[in-house]
Amino acid sequence: MEENEISLAVIKRLPRYFRYLEELIDSGVERISSGELSRRMNVTASQIRQDLNNFGGFGQQGYGYNVKYLHSEIAKILGIDKIHSIIIVGAGNLGKALANYANFEKRGFVVKAMFDTNEALIGKECRGAVIRPMSEMEAFIKDNNIEILALTIPKGSATEVVQTAIKAGIKGIWNFAHIDLEVPDNVVVENVHLSESLMTLSYNITRLH
Amino acid sequence: MEENEISLAVIKRLPRYFRYLEELIDSGVERISSGELSRRMNVTASQIRQDLNNFGGFGQQGYGYNVKYLHSEIAKILGIDKIHSIIIVGAGNLGKALANYANFEKRGFVVKAMFDTNEALIGKECRGAVIRPMSEMEAFIKDNNIEILALTIPKGSATEVVQTAIKAGIKGIWNFAHIDLEVPDNVVVENVHLSESLMTLSYNITRLH
Repeated sequence: MEENEISLAVIKRLPRYFRYLEELIDSGVERISSGELSRRMNVTASQIRQDLNNFGGFGQQGYGYNVKYLHSEIAKILGIDKIHSIIIVGAGNLGKALANYANFEKRGFVVKAMFDTNEALIGKECRGAVIRPMSEMEAFIKDNNIEILALTIPKGSATEVVQTAIKAGIKGIWNFAHIDLEVPDNVVVENVHLSESLMTLSYNITRLH
Repeated sequence: MEENEISLAVIKRLPRYFRYLEELIDSGVERISSGELSRRMNVTASQIRQDLNNFGGFGQQGYGYNVKYLHSEIAKILGIDKIHSIIIVGAGNLGKALANYANFEKRGFVVKAMFDTNEALIGKECRGAVIRPMSEMEAFIKDNNIEILALTIPKGSATEVVQTAIKAGIKGIWNFAHIDLEVPDNVVVENVHLSESLMTLSYNITRLH
């Protein structure tokens, strides 16, 4: 794929471009110059031009970018022009918070089910996603072509759950558990380590004050 | 401060060292060689030695690291040897998930109160933290020496809340809102952009499959 050439740094910036372009659409802006986008995003206009040139450059000299077009092209590159099916493993507060995030659905991420070991939760619903017993996870992933597993359980059982999900064909793990997961090359892990993020904040506060 | 010399890359790795050392303590390990730590953490032994040398190097040749000592030294550097007071603004699912995260308290981050605009929530409690009206936030920060504000509200009112908190003396913002906050130099922002993390996952799945 041609996108293979694009540096990780550029890729990391794309969701932010996407967010700004979405805001521009919401406020009715149809065209924007790299200069104006640069002021809003607080990055240089030349970086914006360079970044967007990676994707063939969607701007026209003296005319600016077509906001909707650029938004939809970036959506394609990020793969969010398609629907992605998610399951959430762990129906605690964090799992529920993710299930209730309407924004995800807007971006094509649909929560198909939740799974938990707590018998008392089985059968309940979170924004349309039914909480099911862990024993049903493997078959559910296979039968419903689930791509992404959001992991919001304690680290103790995380490895076992992930192994089962990989066997069932999961493609990506959105990992909130405090553990480094080992996965084969064709499975992607994206970590959100809340504790570590809070420690980084603490470090920076300590350093400044 | 001497820590100013340490590169951001090293700092970013410290919470991960801390997590592994915590696990070692929990499993009763008292000493560990850089080689063994390297196998567990999947980084090179020489990187571990280099990283830890930044802090004076706590290891002894042929003897390994004293796990508890290293753990407490890293805690000091990260500033988590002290108690940090937090308020959570936004008592929705995500705010509640954060308030209920027992792990944070274990690391010295204590949630002192939550704030919300929803009248129906005022007076309720989340793991001991009372939900209060937004109008009380400014005085609460001042009166209770609150250091950190966890921001879990929609972006619409985020800027105003943050301005008020800064006026009241807040030192750090743990930002879950989908917005880039502008703050003075003496205030630290740590972003957790869940949507963007999910888009990065989607990009990597799309690229691989």
